[in-house]
Amino acid sequence: MKKILIAYRLKPEGLKELEGRYEVTLPTDKAHFSREEVLEMIPAYEVLVPNFSFYTDREIMERGVKLELISNYGVGYNNIDVACANEKGIVVTNIPNTTREPTAEFAFGLLLAAGRRIGYYDRKLRSPEGVSWGVYAEAGLPVYGKRLGIIGMGRIGQSLARRALASGMEIVYHNRNRLDETIEKFYQARWLTLEELLGSSDYISLNAPSTPETYHMIGERELCMMKSTAVFINTARGNMVDEQALAAALRDKRIWAAGLDVFEEEPHILPELLTLDNVVLAPHAATKTMEDRIRMSEEMVQNIIGFYEGRYPISRVN
Amino acid sequence: MKKILIAYRLKPEGLKELEGRYEVTLPTDKAHFSREEVLEMIPAYEVLVPNFSFYTDREIMERGVKLELISNYGVGYNNIDVACANEKGIVVTNIPNTTREPTAEFAFGLLLAAGRRIGYYDRKLRSPEGVSWGVYAEAGLPVYGKRLGIIGMGRIGQSLARRALASGMEIVYHNRNRLDETIEKFYQARWLTLEELLGSSDYISLNAPSTPETYHMIGERELCMMKSTAVFINTARGNMVDEQALAAALRDKRIWAAGLDVFEEEPHILPELLTLDNVVLAPHAATKTMEDRIRMSEEMVQNIIGFYEGRYPISRVN
Repeated sequence: MKKILIAYRLKPEGLKELEGRYEVTLPTDKAHFSREEVLEMIPAYEVLVPNFSFYTDREIMERGVKLELISNYGVGYNNIDVACANEKGIVVTNIPNTTREPTAEFAFGLLLAAGRRIGYYDRKLRSPEGVSWGVYAEAGLPVYGKRLGIIGMGRIGQSLARRALASGMEIVYHNRNRLDETIEKFYQARWLTLEELLGSSDYISLNAPSTPETYHMIGERELCMMKSTAVFINTARGNMVDEQALAAALRDKRIWAAGLDVFEEEPHILPELLTLDNVVLAPHAATKTMEDRIRMSEEMVQNIIGFYEGRYPISRVN
Repeated sequence: MKKILIAYRLKPEGLKELEGRYEVTLPTDKAHFSREEVLEMIPAYEVLVPNFSFYTDREIMERGVKLELISNYGVGYNNIDVACANEKGIVVTNIPNTTREPTAEFAFGLLLAAGRRIGYYDRKLRSPEGVSWGVYAEAGLPVYGKRLGIIGMGRIGQSLARRALASGMEIVYHNRNRLDETIEKFYQARWLTLEELLGSSDYISLNAPSTPETYHMIGERELCMMKSTAVFINTARGNMVDEQALAAALRDKRIWAAGLDVFEEEPHILPELLTLDNVVLAPHAATKTMEDRIRMSEEMVQNIIGFYEGRYPISRVN
């Protein structure tokens, strides 16, 4: 019987299909195993299940002498040293299907909250200073009729585009490769260079994967290209943005607002961001609903079963 | 030349079409005229422009001996004693076109912020206690795949339905009268009795007009019919909801969350609501963006010009 080490205390509802056919170890008395505990246990396991906050590096793979599969509990896999996995013949899988809609939904929620100042109003109304009820005072920015620039028009980007289109937005996007014309037509979306997108969009959403090439892809230079009324949304990965430069641009009002679910050094957030009125902050929660997290477990489990038994197509990243 | 009294300091950008053809008075040194100032000036004016927070009652209409038109700067007109206007032959107009999309947009923003806990996360991350970054802790509720019950499926309700449908929601609605089948099909929307809607919806949005019949239409009884996981959104009018009963239901977690842009005694908000974690609050800001507010002025102006010159269709409410 193959042995599976799940680093997190995932709920049993999502793991049912493994019962009786795999030997599953997961923490029972705490939220997750420590790195040290995983290093100690890993030699006996064929499968490891990490998530975005568990860095699965060469040391873990070298200790995991039996490792055949890393079944990531997440769509982004920048937490895994895939080059090392390749070298060792370990298959890596991720879960793009169940993460797609909740992430796009959350990104659109941040977009509305940042543009229409929903986060700001809610905070200020509860503070001693309050907020103005006047006709123009502390007004937000419209979303309807505005241009949304999507950087990374994959599954999540397209699900975001579907929502934005129905909300009266114009869609432009940047990918390394242009999409098929039929997909472009479906979303009424136009490909732009990154520079064109940054300079012309009212809202900009980052939905690309974190890779060595996308590290700090939004920095001082890119922020300077944006409109002073631009609203920037990040539900991808924190390390794709120079957080210091972003905080400075928000502080100096060189861009209008941001909605951020991810950060460079999670769970740490740059203290300055916590003091800024024109940002909406969330704790890497884009897929965080109980139902979605259980569906994510089921997809992760199907990758394991598909890998060993062939009953499901699996989402391999290497 | 007809004389227009605008109770609010509206921006000149939205009033251009009146120039040279009407005599316009509006405050120049403050946000709005007081009730006393309006009472003093009104005898000389043919047109009065109030908004939701300026109650245009019998006293004002009796003093306004020349009044021919009340051109409301808003879509809801519960601030105007329309029965009295009827009696005196004063026409009342409102602005349903320019308010439609921003209000639906804001309602959907509140829905996402309340369900996915965006307001909560933003507040907690900035507080000393912080928020958990764990897999399940402090999780929100999904929106995708859930049922949205729209009470009042008029223009704003339908614009909300369009957004919700593209976000993977199922649409049910309650109106006094069922919509045409073609409209129902367009939104894949099903008519339910109010009781059926309240008992079966995951999200409930109030988008009906405030009238004597809809006063406190959501009270203790209706809140008790809702699911314990229901999320209630109000961008209509505060007096349609028993705010005390709503606050109690939120406090006791008999419903899951609320997103509220309107309140019974604006700008006063029930102090208990300000202390609750499961509510997102906004200061009657559903149409509050500079661009929208200027477009609203233009529509309001077109009602005046349409009334006197016939060049525009006007939105009469009586």
